[in-house]
Amino acid sequence: MRVLRDITGRRQLRNPFGGASILSDDHVAHLHTQALQFLQSSGIRVLLPEARTRFAGAGASVDHDALLVRLDTALTQELLDLAPAEFTITARNASRSLVVGGDHLALAPVAGPPYVSDRVHGRRPGTMSDFDDFVRLTQRTEVLHTTTPAVEAQDVPMALRHLRTTQSTLTLSDKVPYFYARGRGVVADSLEMIRLANGVSVDEFRTRPYCWTNINTNSPRQLDVPMCMGIIDSAAAGQATIMTPFTLAGAMAPVTLAGALLLQHVEALAAIALAQIVRPGAPVIYGAFTSNVDMKSGAPAFGTPEGFTASVASGQLARHIDVPWRSQATSTSNTEDAQGAAETMVSLTGALLGGANVVLHSAGWQEGGLVASMEKFVLDVEVLDIVAESLRPIPMDDASLAVASIDEVGPGGHFFGTSHTLERFETAFHDPVAFTRQNHGQWTEAGSHDAATRATDVWQRWLREFEAPPIDDAALAAVDEFVQRRVAEGGALPES
Amino acid sequence: MRVLRDITGRRQLRNPFGGASILSDDHVAHLHTQALQFLQSSGIRVLLPEARTRFAGAGASVDHDALLVRLDTALTQELLDLAPAEFTITARNASRSLVVGGDHLALAPVAGPPYVSDRVHGRRPGTMSDFDDFVRLTQRTEVLHTTTPAVEAQDVPMALRHLRTTQSTLTLSDKVPYFYARGRGVVADSLEMIRLANGVSVDEFRTRPYCWTNINTNSPRQLDVPMCMGIIDSAAAGQATIMTPFTLAGAMAPVTLAGALLLQHVEALAAIALAQIVRPGAPVIYGAFTSNVDMKSGAPAFGTPEGFTASVASGQLARHIDVPWRSQATSTSNTEDAQGAAETMVSLTGALLGGANVVLHSAGWQEGGLVASMEKFVLDVEVLDIVAESLRPIPMDDASLAVASIDEVGPGGHFFGTSHTLERFETAFHDPVAFTRQNHGQWTEAGSHDAATRATDVWQRWLREFEAPPIDDAALAAVDEFVQRRVAEGGALPES
Repeated sequence: MRVLRDITGRRQLRNPFGGASILSDDHVAHLHTQALQFLQSSGIRVLLPEARTRFAGAGASVDHDALLVRLDTALTQELLDLAPAEFTITARNASRSLVVGGDHLALAPVAGPPYVSDRVHGRRPGTMSDFDDFVRLTQRTEVLHTTTPAVEAQDVPMALRHLRTTQSTLTLSDKVPYFYARGRGVVADSLEMIRLANGVSVDEFRTRPYCWTNINTNSPRQLDVPMCMGIIDSAAAGQATIMTPFTLAGAMAPVTLAGALLLQHVEALAAIALAQIVRPGAPVIYGAFTSNVDMKSGAPAFGTPEGFTASVASGQLARHIDVPWRSQATSTSNTEDAQGAAETMVSLTGALLGGANVVLHSAGWQEGGLVASMEKFVLDVEVLDIVAESLRPIPMDDASLAVASIDEVGPGGHFFGTSHTLERFETAFHDPVAFTRQNHGQWTEAGSHDAATRATDVWQRWLREFEAPPIDDAALAAVDEFVQRRVAEGGALPES
Repeated sequence: MRVLRDITGRRQLRNPFGGASILSDDHVAHLHTQALQFLQSSGIRVLLPEARTRFAGAGASVDHDALLVRLDTALTQELLDLAPAEFTITARNASRSLVVGGDHLALAPVAGPPYVSDRVHGRRPGTMSDFDDFVRLTQRTEVLHTTTPAVEAQDVPMALRHLRTTQSTLTLSDKVPYFYARGRGVVADSLEMIRLANGVSVDEFRTRPYCWTNINTNSPRQLDVPMCMGIIDSAAAGQATIMTPFTLAGAMAPVTLAGALLLQHVEALAAIALAQIVRPGAPVIYGAFTSNVDMKSGAPAFGTPEGFTASVASGQLARHIDVPWRSQATSTSNTEDAQGAAETMVSLTGALLGGANVVLHSAGWQEGGLVASMEKFVLDVEVLDIVAESLRPIPMDDASLAVASIDEVGPGGHFFGTSHTLERFETAFHDPVAFTRQNHGQWTEAGSHDAATRATDVWQRWLREFEAPPIDDAALAAVDEFVQRRVAEGGALPES
């Protein structure tokens, strides 16, 4: 049995239920060996010349014409062994720093959708104002551990977008921030802003991670230009990088789960290897996004049994190479209904059983990632709060066992009025926010609103009540000044 | 790591994820010891004189005036040790027989609500026609393993109700049937009908279980008259009995989970002990229903973190005494919304992680058990199908690893048209029934229906397409004849 450690508050969760198995140990070892052999015999396409040169410098076999990089098995394994099993991402509010690895669990909201939706303003392209709102909602939600680019701020010019969004992240939140890996200039600006917000020197910033980014491969078997730049620049700066192959079975990956997992592993290993070449010991996170597409329409499908199983197996693969790993909680549904809730929960359960250290997209993801939904955010947070409470050990002291109270009440009685109950009832149980325990009569009288309708009231109240966290005046001034200067200079365009 | 065995079809599931721990082994042992000591020092109230006499005959200390039974710790443990760790319930269709115990998992729909609800006819008292419909829906749903009294047939007089419902169960389904434990006559009639449907002799019927019932204690610490009769008559007939303490923390049990679990264990042990006194080796199932009440309203709350944690701990307690156990998937929501889906899923996950052998109420339970909902049934079945698929091992043969296919597609390509995909795509992935993978445009064009609305179409279609399973003519005639005779005789009233 695993020993349970104390969980104190929600600042960092520990998951006693991780480490489940769906593959035998032999199959895990076989998948890993097959991936190493594939990298040696067939390799991966790498679009950025600098990345190929770095691979070559480390001893890889590079075909610059075909853009192909092949790593022999010993080299890949040697590079993997350099990646740390656990590390800490330092937040500007030290109590929000995150340990990544082991049985530590960090929950992150939706990241990346172009659209936003709520039941007041409808479904629409995301704006900077929406981005700000999601940062506010994330900041006030104790069970979420890091901010994300929850929605694309489409009203901000591309060259300035990373400046505005990083500024939002750093001033409306004191949680661990994310940065976009969209090319050299974007990364450099973002890291500099995060450094300024933390008030540390350039040298000190490089000694430990203060932020993280996510890299998606172009599955199958390709690392594109901005992704290579992101891996190189994040590793060089000592910041945390999630390497997430985009292996949707049946489309960008084989239709079989074994094949999709093999391809995921091949691509993740190559990306991790590059980071370790750039900086031995660079903090990396094994990303696993494997799910399937709907074979009738070709559309991605989330919250599927295949996605669940792939998550549990991915946890086994990440543990096999002893690197922290990231999963997600996602759904395909077009609205905040029973389908959306169930799919997200299936997906979340796969992540938790697999022992994921970071669960991305765990609040607000809708329509397969096309939409960040305010109501879904609230409903998902309700579930995450339930999950966080469910990870707590059960107090088993004599007072909790309540033998005297059971004796006192006697057969056929009730515990409502006992001193044992009265001393504890106010904090005994988790109280829901958007879920209701009204009976049918009360609920009907209150308008028969479903959970999604009630969630609209909740996010509006949360935004109304929001207070930005304190930030050091000098740090704030430095960030603002940097943004003004870089805006005046025209910012930095993403690369492709 | 646990060895995964083959899962063939859905006829019986095996759960590789059971056996999780939230309590330390020491705490489990301590809870068990405390429960044994409590039964010795304080005991349990037993309302049926025959049951007290049977306890006394086995060596328990009985106070007939106070109706109290105390068992010394050695006696209780001795009786517990007689209960089998695993047994098979034989269905009249042999391929639907159920193994109960180990990593075997059986899923059962909602049982017991007085009301029924669907979006065509609204919310209303249950009738015999509704009961029949739930038997039909259960029969046609491969992922459900046993029928239940899904809704109370309030239009049938009490004295005849068990005759009509058992007849429905036995003729519209060939799955393992349930019988009501509502007193001597009700049990005798029901068992006789089940015997006739199976076409076995009275002696043969008593050699193995063909059906099951559920006993709820009157928590705290009381076994009432019909429950005692049910335990005694079911055990004497060799049929399976689920012993389920009704320990809602804060009301019928201490407000602390440790106390509620202790009380649950005390009551379950007493009920199991009685069955073993009646018939050593009687097939019993440890029932665990511990959840909490809402401390503002006193109303039961389901799908809570407390319910989840209690389920995982209950699995540990059941394994400690080496008896199969029953959990449930339940919710408090008043409608088929995101709350209902999430709560049921939280509850179901607790049951699955705890390794429950029977998950009752797993399809159609709504309003904390007041309502059996047709739409919720469909939505829950969708989730159960996903769960069933999620329990399957991942094939890891060479063809599934698809190395050649990954090589063939090459970097940046796609797998849609490969022979590897084309050979497999039709059966590669789970297809949903009420969940949709339409994109937002298609979904809007189709009317923007949420999952609950789509579920209405599904249960209507399922009922339309229903075909009753074959039944032996002689068995059918015997059941019908028995019912006619007993109806003419006036049936049997429940006892209280």
